[in-house]
Amino acid sequence: MKPKISSGTRDFGAIEISKRRYITDIISQVFTANAYNALETPAFEQLTTLTGKYGEEGEKLMFKILNNGLNEKADDKKAKLNEDFGKHLDTGNTTPTLTERALKYDLTIPFARHVVLNHNLITLPFKRYQMQPVWRADRPQKGRYREFWQCDADVVGVTSLTYDAELIVMYDDVFERLGITATQLCLNNRKILAGLADKLGLGEKLTEFTITLDKLDKIGWETVSSQLTDMGAETQYLDAVYKIMQGPLQNRQKIDALKELGTNTTMETGLVELSLVLDYIEAYKKDTYTQVVFDLSLARGLDYYTGMIVEVKNENAPGSLGGGGRYDELTAVFGLKDVPGVGISFGLDRIYNLMEEQELFPPDILPIPDLLVYAPQPLQDSLATIAQWRRQGLVVDALYQKTKIDKVYKRAEQQGIRHVCIWAQDTTPQAITYKNIVSGEKYNVDNDTLIQNLKN
Amino acid sequence: MKPKISSGTRDFGAIEISKRRYITDIISQVFTANAYNALETPAFEQLTTLTGKYGEEGEKLMFKILNNGLNEKADDKKAKLNEDFGKHLDTGNTTPTLTERALKYDLTIPFARHVVLNHNLITLPFKRYQMQPVWRADRPQKGRYREFWQCDADVVGVTSLTYDAELIVMYDDVFERLGITATQLCLNNRKILAGLADKLGLGEKLTEFTITLDKLDKIGWETVSSQLTDMGAETQYLDAVYKIMQGPLQNRQKIDALKELGTNTTMETGLVELSLVLDYIEAYKKDTYTQVVFDLSLARGLDYYTGMIVEVKNENAPGSLGGGGRYDELTAVFGLKDVPGVGISFGLDRIYNLMEEQELFPPDILPIPDLLVYAPQPLQDSLATIAQWRRQGLVVDALYQKTKIDKVYKRAEQQGIRHVCIWAQDTTPQAITYKNIVSGEKYNVDNDTLIQNLKN
Repeated sequence: MKPKISSGTRDFGAIEISKRRYITDIISQVFTANAYNALETPAFEQLTTLTGKYGEEGEKLMFKILNNGLNEKADDKKAKLNEDFGKHLDTGNTTPTLTERALKYDLTIPFARHVVLNHNLITLPFKRYQMQPVWRADRPQKGRYREFWQCDADVVGVTSLTYDAELIVMYDDVFERLGITATQLCLNNRKILAGLADKLGLGEKLTEFTITLDKLDKIGWETVSSQLTDMGAETQYLDAVYKIMQGPLQNRQKIDALKELGTNTTMETGLVELSLVLDYIEAYKKDTYTQVVFDLSLARGLDYYTGMIVEVKNENAPGSLGGGGRYDELTAVFGLKDVPGVGISFGLDRIYNLMEEQELFPPDILPIPDLLVYAPQPLQDSLATIAQWRRQGLVVDALYQKTKIDKVYKRAEQQGIRHVCIWAQDTTPQAITYKNIVSGEKYNVDNDTLIQNLKN
Repeated sequence: MKPKISSGTRDFGAIEISKRRYITDIISQVFTANAYNALETPAFEQLTTLTGKYGEEGEKLMFKILNNGLNEKADDKKAKLNEDFGKHLDTGNTTPTLTERALKYDLTIPFARHVVLNHNLITLPFKRYQMQPVWRADRPQKGRYREFWQCDADVVGVTSLTYDAELIVMYDDVFERLGITATQLCLNNRKILAGLADKLGLGEKLTEFTITLDKLDKIGWETVSSQLTDMGAETQYLDAVYKIMQGPLQNRQKIDALKELGTNTTMETGLVELSLVLDYIEAYKKDTYTQVVFDLSLARGLDYYTGMIVEVKNENAPGSLGGGGRYDELTAVFGLKDVPGVGISFGLDRIYNLMEEQELFPPDILPIPDLLVYAPQPLQDSLATIAQWRRQGLVVDALYQKTKIDKVYKRAEQQGIRHVCIWAQDTTPQAITYKNIVSGEKYNVDNDTLIQNLKN
């Protein structure tokens, strides 16, 4: 039986791992410079920790783990299981008898769980970062996987908007170091959206309003406008709002234009917050590498955002490269109140795919062996010498089995190894012959010289 | 509702992550120097890939993932599911309708699956390493977790025993670099065990024989001896074998003693192999850091080993710190024949626990921020300066919210930060005051001087 890899998952070989590490190293350097500390949480959580946090859709896409011990055949246990399974089929809800655990769906809820469990040990503000896989049973397609990586940074226990700006500048620093051009950091504020909904007479339908607005890119203004009208929007402002939204105005001009349209208290607060965040970003980094844009149509699905929201868009990539925002209550779902904070997330896989397409990875990113040795007789000298080379910091691939010389050179070529040493009967550590297979040059040197030559 | 972490799993904070990375960095440096390349496989595999590979016990401890879409309530689907669940309860076997995936149980089978799927692209010998978590539903106890890390190196497509020695020397190099003393690399050979079973008249009961022998440490020789006798062992050799096994003999003396006892072809082959591996190890590294011991009682549970087997024991740690061996057919279970190889595995969690107990981690392993800045007014100068420090390579924690000065210093102390800067109304990049809170010394310097001072 030929095995297959599970749909939506991937193996990563040496080159892919090196490239992924190139990205995560840069992200973690920026996180660390800003004094965010690493955290890792388990692959699975208690189902009760995750249930009810991701909406109906999230619930469906969660990978639940079958309880062990289901194999036990005690009759009463069996009856109970059968009953639970029947209920499960009727209601669609899994019961604790069937499943108590699920793979994590994002990094935020496990982080909140960590904060609640450790809140006596944690000093606020608590700055943490986390780079781990998460799992969703989405239909796999180009750029969408069932196992994919998120890189999150959050600071909790703070209300100062300076931290919002700090995180936006961290986004900017990362994309600058990665060399990813044509990136937009789209900012908005949930209070502006709430105020706008009020103004349009849709205050009671805020979620519906934001969901519709969020689809602007996909369905266009005419459809959005007519859907909002159907929802009961006061049409007199609609076109003016669209003009501000999509027009050529600068960020500050958009803020002014909204004020001119006439604001309410909620929108006013949102505009002041946005203004401050823009000020702080400018104070941090006068010339940002990315374009920071006030995008009034940006809504972001998750309900827990309450202030600034951000999404990273790139002209050359579908979807977003990341997103985040400010939340008033990260841990309230677990009964711990007054833990406001703000966070951002990088989508590693999409950044990887974009960098691959744009050929942004540095060449020679893989640690290619410095030397391939063919030593078909395991003579004392050859093994000791190879061991010494490795201890001195050379990466040495060795072939010990008898094979044709052609095959030795072919292996070197396939692996990109530039130097080949054939350890012959008369080879000694004082007289070693090796060849640069790119230039064709041959060398006959002693052990120390070889190390020095190849280390450069 | 107060959440809990799932039993047998752990969160890792910044210090633990740094210490774990310290270990994995050393392991991967040794792997890389020996030209082993990194590979990563997904958290879950198709259940069919894993089923039947780990014995009855393994099957029970596997975490199976409930299929998604079980929520759909179409009546025929429901009937089918109910029927399957009934069968599942009757037979103890999970069906594809209930579960098609499982979390990986070790790194070896996913590696074999990778080799089979990619064998047209792979150049043999193929040397790979893998450092990832695996999951088992064992009862959690001290040092035993449900999510734990394995660090494996394997080379496939080779029969030369030089590779067996290469891997043993890699073990030795890692424990030397980690500074873990009192470590024994226990070697044995499956052919020696098979020959011994033959000699004792237990040739047909090889598995039972090795399982009994493997328990020697726990149940003592008297019990082992009587169990072997019950199995039908020819008692005349039993005590002689025990004397060789547990006596004060050197490795070569043990080999000679076994020969004197009278060998058969299988045992003879095993002894020659072991002898060669010992020769090659000595050739690689004359003075090993660990003690390399021929341990005739070492059996190792897994059926797929066919030649050398190894287990890492340490006087100060329960269980083993790792293990491995040679296999004739890694991929035969998937229909790909003639892929012999040899591999070793490190148990990261046990090595970590031992190093923690023995205080073997270097001090200052955590990247502690170089400076804590208190900048309660987000003035232009303070943010720009902080950003500049971070870009210059300093790790800077910043407090922007108004708080008592006491709390600023308390945070610095709690985090181990040695320098605190209060950015006051009259502070400028040309005149910055900061304090070393360990020595109590105060400095008033310009921006560049501060960077230079703290970088040292």
